[in-house]
Amino acid sequence: MPHIVLATHLPGITGLLEYRKDTAQPIRELTQILLRGPSTLSEADRELIATVVSFGNQCKFCTAAHTAAADMLFGENNTAEMVKQDIATAPVSEKMKALLTIAALTGKSGRQVTPEIIEKAKSEGATDIEIHDTVLIAALFCLYNRYVDGMATALPVDASYYNVLAERLVNHGYTRLPQGYDHLKK
Amino acid sequence: MPHIVLATHLPGITGLLEYRKDTAQPIRELTQILLRGPSTLSEADRELIATVVSFGNQCKFCTAAHTAAADMLFGENNTAEMVKQDIATAPVSEKMKALLTIAALTGKSGRQVTPEIIEKAKSEGATDIEIHDTVLIAALFCLYNRYVDGMATALPVDASYYNVLAERLVNHGYTRLPQGYDHLKK
Repeated sequence: MPHIVLATHLPGITGLLEYRKDTAQPIRELTQILLRGPSTLSEADRELIATVVSFGNQCKFCTAAHTAAADMLFGENNTAEMVKQDIATAPVSEKMKALLTIAALTGKSGRQVTPEIIEKAKSEGATDIEIHDTVLIAALFCLYNRYVDGMATALPVDASYYNVLAERLVNHGYTRLPQGYDHLKK
Repeated sequence: MPHIVLATHLPGITGLLEYRKDTAQPIRELTQILLRGPSTLSEADRELIATVVSFGNQCKFCTAAHTAAADMLFGENNTAEMVKQDIATAPVSEKMKALLTIAALTGKSGRQVTPEIIEKAKSEGATDIEIHDTVLIAALFCLYNRYVDGMATALPVDASYYNVLAERLVNHGYTRLPQGYDHLKK
């Protein structure tokens, strides 16, 4: 049961974003820029970063939601699963392995990101902005994971909810839905 | 040395906020709403929450910056220091002790926030929105701490920098300084 009164039909982060809409707005905007804005990292790769951090933080809601989004963007459900099991052997590029490792370390503590893993990422072709965005996406999902679990938000009653949410995140992004899409919030 | 090229005269978070201004904007706005917006928690109390989380995450820059801001708001440098040493014996209200404990736990993991500490906070008079804001401020500073340390940003050369920064945070807040205040960014 959530620690405060939240709309019962809105699990995980969704009830929190409705609870305080003025704080929700910049959180949504930051996420939209980082995960859907112009980038040399694909949207699928950025969802993998969100997934690996949420998984490391043991945040069930965020892990399931961003795994579903990554799966939808990849068109398969193997890559995200493999990344969660072991980044080193997952079917992603060497550059993405280095960036996902940086993300996982950032998820534990920024102090765990070593010059060596940064050099590895750069030697595999990662640019400064890709490294920056990887760290900031990881930091943002540490915010989300703590917000969602620190408030003890509910999980969805039916796991198919994550596919509906993923469709919305993939096709409509992270900013607030325009009027007329209210049925998607149910 | 920072992991990417940042302006050398801007230590800690300040160089990162200049490095990517589009992501900086919603981070600044969220911080302004939570730490300076209307609230039944004082600005000093909210800076204490930022301080205790940054201290727990061992983020030197953020701890020093928000300790300095809290000290300036309290008009003394005892409270923040005592809170960092031991929340239970610090000279703050029982409600604030409970909220600071919730913040410290959120800083470790949202999963560590128990129904018992939430009940304790409520029994001491904490409202739902105060509990919500405490968790979200703690989550936000987990973002900051990981961003600052995950990029290996530099500390200021002179510790007096923190007093200049605190003056700016106390008197001008967290949103971008208007034109004409550029000297304060130096």
